[in-house]
Amino acid sequence: YQLSLFGFGGSRKPDIESADTWMAKPITDLKYLQENNHDMKCRVEAMIMRIQAEFCHALEKEEEEEGGKKFLVDKWERDQGGGGITCVLQDGTVFEKAGVNISVVSGILPPSAMQQMRARGKKFEGEKVKFFAAGVSSVIHPKNPHIPTVHFNYRYFEVEAENGEKQWWFGGGTDLTPNFLEEEDVVHFHKELKKACDRHDKKLYPKYKKWCDDYFFVTHRGERRGVGGIFFDDVDEPTADKCFDFVTGCADSVIPSYLPLVQKHKKDLYSYKEREWQLLRRGRYVEFNLIYDRGTKFGLYTPGARFESILMSLPLNARWEYMHKPAPGSKEARLVDVLQNPRDWI
Amino acid sequence: YQLSLFGFGGSRKPDIESADTWMAKPITDLKYLQENNHDMKCRVEAMIMRIQAEFCHALEKEEEEEGGKKFLVDKWERDQGGGGITCVLQDGTVFEKAGVNISVVSGILPPSAMQQMRARGKKFEGEKVKFFAAGVSSVIHPKNPHIPTVHFNYRYFEVEAENGEKQWWFGGGTDLTPNFLEEEDVVHFHKELKKACDRHDKKLYPKYKKWCDDYFFVTHRGERRGVGGIFFDDVDEPTADKCFDFVTGCADSVIPSYLPLVQKHKKDLYSYKEREWQLLRRGRYVEFNLIYDRGTKFGLYTPGARFESILMSLPLNARWEYMHKPAPGSKEARLVDVLQNPRDWI
Repeated sequence: YQLSLFGFGGSRKPDIESADTWMAKPITDLKYLQENNHDMKCRVEAMIMRIQAEFCHALEKEEEEEGGKKFLVDKWERDQGGGGITCVLQDGTVFEKAGVNISVVSGILPPSAMQQMRARGKKFEGEKVKFFAAGVSSVIHPKNPHIPTVHFNYRYFEVEAENGEKQWWFGGGTDLTPNFLEEEDVVHFHKELKKACDRHDKKLYPKYKKWCDDYFFVTHRGERRGVGGIFFDDVDEPTADKCFDFVTGCADSVIPSYLPLVQKHKKDLYSYKEREWQLLRRGRYVEFNLIYDRGTKFGLYTPGARFESILMSLPLNARWEYMHKPAPGSKEARLVDVLQNPRDWI
Repeated sequence: YQLSLFGFGGSRKPDIESADTWMAKPITDLKYLQENNHDMKCRVEAMIMRIQAEFCHALEKEEEEEGGKKFLVDKWERDQGGGGITCVLQDGTVFEKAGVNISVVSGILPPSAMQQMRARGKKFEGEKVKFFAAGVSSVIHPKNPHIPTVHFNYRYFEVEAENGEKQWWFGGGTDLTPNFLEEEDVVHFHKELKKACDRHDKKLYPKYKKWCDDYFFVTHRGERRGVGGIFFDDVDEPTADKCFDFVTGCADSVIPSYLPLVQKHKKDLYSYKEREWQLLRRGRYVEFNLIYDRGTKFGLYTPGARFESILMSLPLNARWEYMHKPAPGSKEARLVDVLQNPRDWI
């Protein structure tokens, strides 16, 4: 709780000051971002640029000892307005496929997106709703089966209805998908996320932890994608400033929650059978992303979406075996058990 | 054209007479099937049992020379009524994953299915609609990248609304997904399908060929899943008998259209690069099946569906590379070109 005194409320170094470390020039002109730091759209863009850069550099550092593969940086523009920066490190020594993407887009909300937001309870008048969306999203598939896959996404939305009414909200989450259950790793991961949540409100972690378990559910298999984390949407209270600080804190917790697991396991030995199991789990990951994930579906059905950035989340390799069932009592079965019956980790 | 004199109109041996070759006992008691051969539900069940058996045996014959892997036969029951027989041959020498499934199910139409049928123009009164569905479906992923993947599905539906009004229809199709474009293979494949269609009406092949190109479209990539074939739904004219003969003829054309391609290419040599390309194409196959395919979506959202039989269509291995683009002028690029611009093959 005492961390809120230091970590937030203006004592943190402004994100924009990290501009010289960013992976590419921002989508919006840097000067404009600097001069409009009162505008939440600009603050979010600077924040996601910093998060992308810090995470990419942290991952590259893990590759460095092993061959030094770097992120490929793809800056792209969207015909309908805005663009993004997709960073991908593929077939490295530590990481099989690591994608870290930011996007800053605006325009008229596509009907499918409007329908989805209305189904979630959002209300806005008229058919032509203007929107602004900025976010950072990432999926890391390591090579070593003992390092879990991680995914995070933090985003900010503004919409303006035809009658001029404006709404804004934040959404996001971080979640872990291991191939084998290492309880102390999962506990460490959840503890770091809880820390980030607790700084704002002790009620947040339990609520967002449950939301995560509910969201990443593969209905047809009756199991979760992984061991959870946090997930939230439509966050707009108590103030925009506090929401921004909360989301920034969550995004900042990715490195301390995940990197220690990479460092701990990246030199672990593994068997052919463990690699095969990892590939089967990757198949499950593909199932969730292509069948259930709102972001993927929403993205792929949006005209002008950059599908390569959306499908960046798919693993380099995946496998499907008919009726594969881990042997009872095996470590594979222990993982499946926890996917079917989510636990409290803290 | 002259084939219609022999192949149809009652001169064909009844499907039920092949019962001793079937992969398992039928879902409905054999005696009941024999005694109710006037009932279309029974005729269809006998037909799909024969098609499944003939196709499985033909594929096993291709494996025989190479090690003799056989189909695993899984008979399953559905809590809500009916069941199926799933035959899978996994990790053979010729076939990486071959699935041939029949199902015969009945009950009350799930709301999602009803909505989908209504969206397609079907009209029925009330909320409790009884249904019967029987079909055979199959996906064959060979090991050798020079053998195309084939998929077919032939099915029969009956629904009965609350007011007692009954409707029935047939649907189905066969389509080919090669990794490299061998024009003479594609022409052979389409010619056999055309033959089966032409016996009934010369208008059918062009119509169903276009329907196939339209259906197997991966919107986000702007390309088709493969080089097409035939696809149709809601077929209920001119009579149930003629529709049954037509669909049976299409199902019978699977072996002559596809098996020659297996035999021609199963001993072809291939490079590491060709195998990698095949895995990338398999990734595209997964994208279509999990994002767009009506059968898969409908199946996975249906309570009590047997997901292992539905996901049997997924390849054993698949791969996704960020921004993979075949070199201009390469044989990989020639395939993508034809997927983007479907051709008339005959």
